[in-house]
Amino acid sequence: MTTPRYTPLAASLPSTVPFVGPETQERGRGALFRARLGANESVFGPSPLAVAAMQAAAADTWMYGDPENHDLRHALAEVEQVQPENIIVGEGIDGLLGYIVRLIAGPGDAVVTSDGAYPTFNYHVAGYGAELHKVPYRDDREDPQALVAKAAETGAKLIYLANPDNPMGTWHDGTVIERMVADLPDGCLLVLDEAYHHFLPNEALPRIAAEDPRVIRFRTFSKAYGMAGARVGYGIAAPDLIQSFDKVRNHFGMSRISQAGALAALNDPDYMISVVAQVGWARERISAIASANGLTPLPSATNFVTLDCGEDGVFARKVLTELLSRDIFVRMPFVAPQDRCIRISAGTGADLDLLAEVLPQALEAARAGS
Amino acid sequence: MTTPRYTPLAASLPSTVPFVGPETQERGRGALFRARLGANESVFGPSPLAVAAMQAAAADTWMYGDPENHDLRHALAEVEQVQPENIIVGEGIDGLLGYIVRLIAGPGDAVVTSDGAYPTFNYHVAGYGAELHKVPYRDDREDPQALVAKAAETGAKLIYLANPDNPMGTWHDGTVIERMVADLPDGCLLVLDEAYHHFLPNEALPRIAAEDPRVIRFRTFSKAYGMAGARVGYGIAAPDLIQSFDKVRNHFGMSRISQAGALAALNDPDYMISVVAQVGWARERISAIASANGLTPLPSATNFVTLDCGEDGVFARKVLTELLSRDIFVRMPFVAPQDRCIRISAGTGADLDLLAEVLPQALEAARAGS
Repeated sequence: MTTPRYTPLAASLPSTVPFVGPETQERGRGALFRARLGANESVFGPSPLAVAAMQAAAADTWMYGDPENHDLRHALAEVEQVQPENIIVGEGIDGLLGYIVRLIAGPGDAVVTSDGAYPTFNYHVAGYGAELHKVPYRDDREDPQALVAKAAETGAKLIYLANPDNPMGTWHDGTVIERMVADLPDGCLLVLDEAYHHFLPNEALPRIAAEDPRVIRFRTFSKAYGMAGARVGYGIAAPDLIQSFDKVRNHFGMSRISQAGALAALNDPDYMISVVAQVGWARERISAIASANGLTPLPSATNFVTLDCGEDGVFARKVLTELLSRDIFVRMPFVAPQDRCIRISAGTGADLDLLAEVLPQALEAARAGS
Repeated sequence: MTTPRYTPLAASLPSTVPFVGPETQERGRGALFRARLGANESVFGPSPLAVAAMQAAAADTWMYGDPENHDLRHALAEVEQVQPENIIVGEGIDGLLGYIVRLIAGPGDAVVTSDGAYPTFNYHVAGYGAELHKVPYRDDREDPQALVAKAAETGAKLIYLANPDNPMGTWHDGTVIERMVADLPDGCLLVLDEAYHHFLPNEALPRIAAEDPRVIRFRTFSKAYGMAGARVGYGIAAPDLIQSFDKVRNHFGMSRISQAGALAALNDPDYMISVVAQVGWARERISAIASANGLTPLPSATNFVTLDCGEDGVFARKVLTELLSRDIFVRMPFVAPQDRCIRISAGTGADLDLLAEVLPQALEAARAGS
């Protein structure tokens, strides 16, 4: 008998990293990137109030954070116009996705997502032994009615939908999502990933009651609030579902500094709004640079723009490689036909100057290598 | 059919918090504690270098942390005199305990711990549906040979042992642990929680090769490094086991600020050594205060002292309540006969002045209420 004896499920899982981090790539290249535009981070940074709050909290980090996230939950409830009992705070949406999958989807259970959607969700589904069913994107958007139909067909307990979508940046109007909720099969929970909801036009936000037992919405401080490294995500759902996270979560898992930073960020909505505006300008600039080089920018309600390179995945991967070798960290969709695109996060003026300079060279090199 | 449909395991679990945080108690009392001596945090705080590093990293928190924890793992490997491949970094020992249980102990699998040992481990075992077998403490210490015997009897896949122990503060010499490892049943992994190892006399540290497939050791920045709120723990084990964490962990779960702080803390060993010395003085002071009031301090190789109140759990709970009502946050062991004790973390001079002032009153009130 060998040690350790993994569970059969654990033994069957690969030791993978869903995303290779830019630091890993930098170590591999032996050089730093000059523009970090691959992980949909916010180059505009956190609110100065959040930075100050985190700095002030640094010396207090000898204390565990409040395991109930009381102050942050109450502040979020006010912002979201729900009750604190409707809010769960966790270690980023990634962490919360793990918990919701664990609570609901076990071996043999069906789960539905889109082919090419967020791989970390798929990682959790595999990690708990559930069975993932995928439906294709339609016109570079996730296909709500196809997801619902697949869930009905498979008896799925969960559907994952990101709106706006990552990696494509596209979105559906709120009415489409509301219709999807109405059409959900009995007993199927919609996991609605709204990491990018701040970038949606207001009228495009679906109206979903926090008490609706058919949906859990996930939002984050990683995007518009510019705090990806702080690992603060939250879920909005009915109190029964929110409370169930206490069955499985790492109660003392939140960084105390991150709690303080997130709370301060909520107190500076103007800063967040200014970031959304800067992201809008950056998206226009990325789109203009792309168009000038013969690429087609997809419409985006996120902090990135997905660019159709006009050929297949092989070509887009070459473009990506050439950009990486010219010190711009970018990523691309993993799955065809979306993998004909590359994905570029909103950057600073300097970042996008570099993109404007380098993209023609990258495209030329990619075409020469074809 | 109702939504959501929990897994049978999740449905069976209670929504509990293993520990009620001091903030929750403060909200309940409507008053702050004057001394925070209940969670074995380090009132001496993090190294000034770590504080400075975290403050400097605050503005960078728009970037995700390195999911490989490369720099921290390499620095830890040097400190621990092992290879980086022997190190896994995670969201505190709590988070890492969840991962190791998930990897190894599934429904029906046997796991062994001591009755009254760290409840968060038990929480994870229950959370993954494994079966927990407990052996009693012996003379207020965990009983390695009884743990081994119980593991042999039950075919356990995991044994949990904290050395030094929490909540009792007692410890075994390294040779005892080494013998325990030698006696482990085939296929049984020892989860050796060494959160308090910095407070052990050096000669009491067991010699266990990092490559030994029978053991995983967990250590932390929460105690001697004074960074409980940063959530940085790490495991030391054979590379195969370390790599298996990539199957289940939240890859982007670490706070970037915490990574920076932990790295800086490692670069200031003198500060950590000075904390260990201050903790030693605080332990002596706590012991002296206890003895002067007729309580018996247990020997401790941790940053707390467990005090035998000389009667049963009912009485100790009264003493605890009276201390809490006098603004001192303390905790106590949950299980008899250890629950005849209360547990007091090393405090500042001011904290312990308050303890000296208040303990006689608390004891008098507890006795009057008996």
